[in-house]
Amino acid sequence: MKEIQSNKNPFIKEIKKLQQKKYRQQTNSYILEGFHLVQEAFNAGVEIQEVFVNPRGQKEWAAWLAERFPEYYLVSDEILKMLADQPTPQGMAAVVSMTEDTIEQFTGAWLLLDQVQDPGNVGTMIRTADAAGFSGVVLGEGTVDLYNPKTLRSMQGSHFHLAVVSRKLPELISELQSQKFTVFGTALDKNAKNYQTVDVQADFALVMGNEGQGMRPDLLAMTDANLYIPIKGQAESLNVAVAAGILMFKLIK
Amino acid sequence: MKEIQSNKNPFIKEIKKLQQKKYRQQTNSYILEGFHLVQEAFNAGVEIQEVFVNPRGQKEWAAWLAERFPEYYLVSDEILKMLADQPTPQGMAAVVSMTEDTIEQFTGAWLLLDQVQDPGNVGTMIRTADAAGFSGVVLGEGTVDLYNPKTLRSMQGSHFHLAVVSRKLPELISELQSQKFTVFGTALDKNAKNYQTVDVQADFALVMGNEGQGMRPDLLAMTDANLYIPIKGQAESLNVAVAAGILMFKLIK
Repeated sequence: MKEIQSNKNPFIKEIKKLQQKKYRQQTNSYILEGFHLVQEAFNAGVEIQEVFVNPRGQKEWAAWLAERFPEYYLVSDEILKMLADQPTPQGMAAVVSMTEDTIEQFTGAWLLLDQVQDPGNVGTMIRTADAAGFSGVVLGEGTVDLYNPKTLRSMQGSHFHLAVVSRKLPELISELQSQKFTVFGTALDKNAKNYQTVDVQADFALVMGNEGQGMRPDLLAMTDANLYIPIKGQAESLNVAVAAGILMFKLIK
Repeated sequence: MKEIQSNKNPFIKEIKKLQQKKYRQQTNSYILEGFHLVQEAFNAGVEIQEVFVNPRGQKEWAAWLAERFPEYYLVSDEILKMLADQPTPQGMAAVVSMTEDTIEQFTGAWLLLDQVQDPGNVGTMIRTADAAGFSGVVLGEGTVDLYNPKTLRSMQGSHFHLAVVSRKLPELISELQSQKFTVFGTALDKNAKNYQTVDVQADFALVMGNEGQGMRPDLLAMTDANLYIPIKGQAESLNVAVAAGILMFKLIK
């Protein structure tokens, strides 16, 4: 165990840089906040480079730390808040190596995200895909960073449970269609197919689009069918993560 | 039209206080951000006390302002950011009077929120209830403030479309049950009823609970049935707004 009390410590300043995407990409590392997520990373066999605890966390997880990370850092509450980018961090943060999932053969249910911008929405959709029993999630070009602190918070460790890969969607949709996959787009257009009329599927992909613009028209034109959720009230649309949840739980076997 | 350029202007400082719940409650007023929501408030017949635009907004909505709010305030970008509590406000903000919905007789589908803490979740659930064709939403004791800026942003004006009322949930559940309502609770407990086995309902209430703790046990004991959504993957739970969306769209006629 090493102790760091000054938030001007150069090592701490280096770590804090990982809140920026640029530094995460340079180092292939990111910050996980909270014991629960650090434990999930450990259980998933992901490389944990550094562990930071505040005095409360040190007390609470003494045995866990002693057994797995005797080289942890004890830091002040203030430093932990800085690293966790949270006003009330849960006592532990860690620097974790990014892992790249490789997919040789797509099977099962896949969620494809086309230019989804809000990190909370992306994290929530990955968490929901996990809960629904999807095989994985594809982040299309222009979709927000998986390791954004807000994505990580709303994802709640689901990226350790299912595959998350980055692909160009036009190529991927063609590839999936050349196999036995049905690719469903989503549209607000009432000429699209009511999602309630679609049969439960085996191998399929569901594409969700940008919060404001929806899916790109060229992708909508490629899909096997485009689905919509009938709106009965006066709301103009559903939040994209809510819509994704309704569709995923409806479509999966 | 009046112009205000200094962000130290005492009137602006007074308005900015409405970002705090205490001042909203004292004045029964709140700040709406963005032309779209201000227009919805106007169309709903809600009292609009003051309208603020930045130079871009003044240009964009000149005719609308001239016809409806000739007494609007032209303010600097910086002031609008302050009032809107947004780094990139959409050119307009307004001070709006709170309205209280009164319900003489509950009918149709109602969403009841038990101690839901996250303003984004509350706003998203009200938006979803609107889209699903629910009659209204009840904010139980301990549920976050309807006029929190984050609630307003995720609600997207749905509080102008359906009834939103505050009630004590134990009393309300008894009241609804003494009428013809079926009251469904929600639980992670697998002894609860799989939501897929429930028939589409006419008059019913669905209770969603706190993000961490779920519904209070005394409420779970009062309901006619408690529902759960089967989790097929490794996620421990669903985001409460996603779960609410899946259940609302499944249960409503």
